[in-house]
Amino acid sequence: MERIDALIHARHVVPVVPRGVVLSEHAVAIHRGRIVGILPSADARARYEADSEHELDRHALIPGLVNAHCHAAMTLLRGIADDLPLMTWLQEHIWPAEGALVSAEFVADGAELAAAEMLAGGVTAVNDQYFFPEAAAPVFRRLGMRASLGAPVLEFPTPYARDASEYLARSLAFADAVRGDDMILASFAPHAPYTVSDDSFRRIRTYADQLGLRIQCHIHETAHEVEEARRLHNERPLARLERLGFLGPDLTAVHMTQLTPAEIERVARHGVVVAHCPESNLKLASGFCPVGALLEAGVTVSIGTDGAASNNDLDLLGELRTAALLAKGVGGNAALMDAATALECATLAGARAIGLEDRIGSIEIGKVADLVAIDFGRIGLAPVYSPVSHIAYAASRHDVSHVWVDGRLRVEHGLVAGIDYDRLRATAARWALRAEAATGQRA
Amino acid sequence: MERIDALIHARHVVPVVPRGVVLSEHAVAIHRGRIVGILPSADARARYEADSEHELDRHALIPGLVNAHCHAAMTLLRGIADDLPLMTWLQEHIWPAEGALVSAEFVADGAELAAAEMLAGGVTAVNDQYFFPEAAAPVFRRLGMRASLGAPVLEFPTPYARDASEYLARSLAFADAVRGDDMILASFAPHAPYTVSDDSFRRIRTYADQLGLRIQCHIHETAHEVEEARRLHNERPLARLERLGFLGPDLTAVHMTQLTPAEIERVARHGVVVAHCPESNLKLASGFCPVGALLEAGVTVSIGTDGAASNNDLDLLGELRTAALLAKGVGGNAALMDAATALECATLAGARAIGLEDRIGSIEIGKVADLVAIDFGRIGLAPVYSPVSHIAYAASRHDVSHVWVDGRLRVEHGLVAGIDYDRLRATAARWALRAEAATGQRA
Repeated sequence: MERIDALIHARHVVPVVPRGVVLSEHAVAIHRGRIVGILPSADARARYEADSEHELDRHALIPGLVNAHCHAAMTLLRGIADDLPLMTWLQEHIWPAEGALVSAEFVADGAELAAAEMLAGGVTAVNDQYFFPEAAAPVFRRLGMRASLGAPVLEFPTPYARDASEYLARSLAFADAVRGDDMILASFAPHAPYTVSDDSFRRIRTYADQLGLRIQCHIHETAHEVEEARRLHNERPLARLERLGFLGPDLTAVHMTQLTPAEIERVARHGVVVAHCPESNLKLASGFCPVGALLEAGVTVSIGTDGAASNNDLDLLGELRTAALLAKGVGGNAALMDAATALECATLAGARAIGLEDRIGSIEIGKVADLVAIDFGRIGLAPVYSPVSHIAYAASRHDVSHVWVDGRLRVEHGLVAGIDYDRLRATAARWALRAEAATGQRA
Repeated sequence: MERIDALIHARHVVPVVPRGVVLSEHAVAIHRGRIVGILPSADARARYEADSEHELDRHALIPGLVNAHCHAAMTLLRGIADDLPLMTWLQEHIWPAEGALVSAEFVADGAELAAAEMLAGGVTAVNDQYFFPEAAAPVFRRLGMRASLGAPVLEFPTPYARDASEYLARSLAFADAVRGDDMILASFAPHAPYTVSDDSFRRIRTYADQLGLRIQCHIHETAHEVEEARRLHNERPLARLERLGFLGPDLTAVHMTQLTPAEIERVARHGVVVAHCPESNLKLASGFCPVGALLEAGVTVSIGTDGAASNNDLDLLGELRTAALLAKGVGGNAALMDAATALECATLAGARAIGLEDRIGSIEIGKVADLVAIDFGRIGLAPVYSPVSHIAYAASRHDVSHVWVDGRLRVEHGLVAGIDYDRLRATAARWALRAEAATGQRA
């Protein structure tokens, strides 16, 4: 008998690689945080002696979900303003609230609220872009959630920095501070083509190449952004970024709702990873990312929730479903983004979006054990024909029963280990009062 | 002190009428199934002595949700076939399964599975279209869920009837059997313009007028349907229905994804109620219902899940959210279908779709007490700025804590009174095996 840390038996194991495969009555063997075996349960019982054993007889076991785009701290602004055009929403609500509130303390509290929600919903890793990543990092580390954190780079002052040079300096300092960290990665996060200069893009490209860090950037979020760039500079933002040598496989391009066929081909050629945020794009009426065409062109499409202020949740399983449904509607073809593809986008493609595809995103021997169990026992999930279809179209994050990160059980019975829920709720309510005061809303 | 049956105190009462209003720390007083008072909690405690009192100190209390379009029995086919074009899905999967399985027993079991899911998710009334409504009626009645049931009318044989005359005869017999029933309404359900003859539409119109029953019909579900009608008859289906005198305020037109501005105006003029099924329309790539334009024209837009075979759930709170998000994306305007409007569509407009707007759909004195409590205590709902926004954009049906129908508590702790869950799961699994055998799928 081989001695290991944990053995998880599941009715259905969906490894994501190979795509669409379902292993019935299989077990995943875990030792020192890594997956060391995937085999029929009966064989696993004969071969391993595990310190802890889990019997998930109605469940599907999938890789941890990766939220490819988020602004975690903005969870404190969940629902502060809705049903407004983008610029009214930003200028009259979000920016005033952020201007008054953003601080290291706000970011730490918001990151905890976001991590509590995401982990319980099966999200084990996040690609986040927000001020004060140095305040968010210890929160994600303590709760055992992987995070790629990028401090924004902007050309104007905020509570975080005065100008592009200071934003960049803080990004570099943060990258230095988390070097070698197993759970936290630094990334560069130039905000968007309309808020970042050519010079800054060039400097970020140079630093990213030198340090081997990834880049995340909002690109072509709205038709307005593209039209403005054409009007002012006679150049579409994506063309400008290509001219600056900014496109590459280390870039995660967020939103991408405005893409010509030629641009899709260009994105594919440069190996750019897309982070698709369907619910935010719908809610802000930003446009439709052409997911079907991107997938057909071979582009890696990951899925993100965006911030809770424009969603209004951090539910990646729900986002996966919206992505799969919307791709069909927008593409006019019910076969687009099938269930297995959608699940791959929310796991393995997300891993690519944060540069961790060698370690997470699928259930394969040698990868770390970031795993999520979905309980198919609820009456709203009966009957079960196809487990993969069920995950994409019928299950909800409330069916998530267990979440492991690095082989450690982080969520059970809907509760995230290490969260003081009453305290966190009170903290969120306190920030909400301050935000309402700052934006002149009723408390 | 006034003696009453029940008093429900809630942190937020959202009566839907008037639209967007939130009453803080209010109570709803219930006697003999009816709402007899809506007043501040403190006043209610002084005025009433209630047999049962509920303290919902973190909750929003809303009217019961109305699912404006469903095929309840098809819940037994949830996820049997996905990611397929409409005609492949129908001809190779759904119709063969239905041909082999549909019977009174199938319909009774499927209705129970559907009602268990819907009630737990806050749906207190449904507009359903399926064979053997006489088998579904006792199930809905026993579980205490309101249902408007329409047996389809078709021109071809199925296990339910041979021809249009027999379908109609069964519809009339069913209407006769449930006359005066408090929970079950009969309606006419001609399937669609492409499956029903002029003669049948004329007869249904006559019977509906004579009996005062409503009509539900799939209309303009896909571009293909409209194109075929033009090609074959040189007339769009809606124009044909108008020519036949079929349009009126007693008609609930389901889907309506293909509408010209002139048709929207015509629908408004006739007072036709639309049943919008956004997730089914997306999943089958049927097209987009122009919800923003319909609302602007003054059309009543209700919301339906459609059957679980094309959704794959009966989650009306989720459907309301999809409807609100999609309306903005499709209309290119983030202000379209705001949260309060979406909630009204899923309640009061649904009540109109089944002709019960005088009895349900809002929290008003004199209406029956079909009520749903949503618990805002989950960490994924913190903080709370706007209760109405939270209901539309952040809450999930899993946050539903209590459901009353006719003043009787039907759901508590996620469980529907009167359901034997183990037996129902086993029943669903048995039908799934038969469906897989019938369609040649692996079990």
